[in-house]
Amino acid sequence: MSNSKGFVLWMTGLSGAGKSTLTEALAPVLRERGCRVEVLDGDVVRTNLSRGLSFSKEDRDTNILRIGFVANLLARNGVAVLTAAISPYRGPRDATRRLVEGDGSRFIETHVSASLAECEARDVKGLYAEARAGKRSNFTGIDDPYEAPIAPEIVVPTGGETLDESLSRILSYLESEGLIGAGLPSRASAGIAVLAGNHD
Amino acid sequence: MSNSKGFVLWMTGLSGAGKSTLTEALAPVLRERGCRVEVLDGDVVRTNLSRGLSFSKEDRDTNILRIGFVANLLARNGVAVLTAAISPYRGPRDATRRLVEGDGSRFIETHVSASLAECEARDVKGLYAEARAGKRSNFTGIDDPYEAPIAPEIVVPTGGETLDESLSRILSYLESEGLIGAGLPSRASAGIAVLAGNHD
Repeated sequence: MSNSKGFVLWMTGLSGAGKSTLTEALAPVLRERGCRVEVLDGDVVRTNLSRGLSFSKEDRDTNILRIGFVANLLARNGVAVLTAAISPYRGPRDATRRLVEGDGSRFIETHVSASLAECEARDVKGLYAEARAGKRSNFTGIDDPYEAPIAPEIVVPTGGETLDESLSRILSYLESEGLIGAGLPSRASAGIAVLAGNHD
Repeated sequence: MSNSKGFVLWMTGLSGAGKSTLTEALAPVLRERGCRVEVLDGDVVRTNLSRGLSFSKEDRDTNILRIGFVANLLARNGVAVLTAAISPYRGPRDATRRLVEGDGSRFIETHVSASLAECEARDVKGLYAEARAGKRSNFTGIDDPYEAPIAPEIVVPTGGETLDESLSRILSYLESEGLIGAGLPSRASAGIAVLAGNHD
């Protein structure tokens, strides 16, 4: 078993900003550094914990609080938890921070920041087109608000840097806070290189 | 961090059979043996993961599958997970077993077995009286079935033994399967003695 300290790296940002891409690329690098890692992706959580919830504000808040509850259980047992849900509202993000910090783990709010124009231009899943066509309501950035973090631990401007640069930014933060050890440069960069073509 | 192997000790049984009492007594003993322990109690889970679900068969199944999803995440990261939900139906218990075993952890179905007459005579929370009075429907054992495990790893006949004996029975199983180390006799029995007056 790993001896790393648990933490919650909470990605927040618009659909298409790159949250899932970042977590998928980050997870194997953290495992290589000796962390136990779990990824709580928005879709996985909706299937296993929140089926039946809508995208109303109340149900979105409930969904985020459930992710926070599970993330905290894992983090306080030494797991590095990566979450990748839009989590558009400040209230439940802040409530999760209080829960996690109250149990002695670090909560690292990570704003995966890309402009609406950038995200809509990518539109990997075609969701923005559906929202613009009125086929999808309560869509963050279109007809539902996104409340950006006020003082996030990390800001990742995915529109203006490569995935490699984004990962280095996050890893540097985790290293500087003593949450992970320094990697072996050759292996770490090899691990990143493999995944670098996949930025959404 | 502990070096113990994760597992799921899944208590199942009627309301009032003694599931919560057993998990509460077991948790500190397992911690003393070096385990990381999390208790997923039915009430805690209903508050944090399943608020809004009813006691219909479909919603009960959903509730159990959610507990199973979280228990598995914890167990595969080295945590000893104790669950204490009635979990009356075989289907979701068996599905959880497949999930947990598929990820390489042990699933230890533990039938906390007391007769309906015994549980109803105790009626610690007054729930049986409400169910008999028609104020509470879908109540397991009264107007909802309880599907007892067919081949549980452990059967704990709480109606016919002391809490001390029940705990010894479970600890012996965990030791024999190599899931926990042998305890220091004096400390372990001291830990049990403190809690022995609290069997529900």
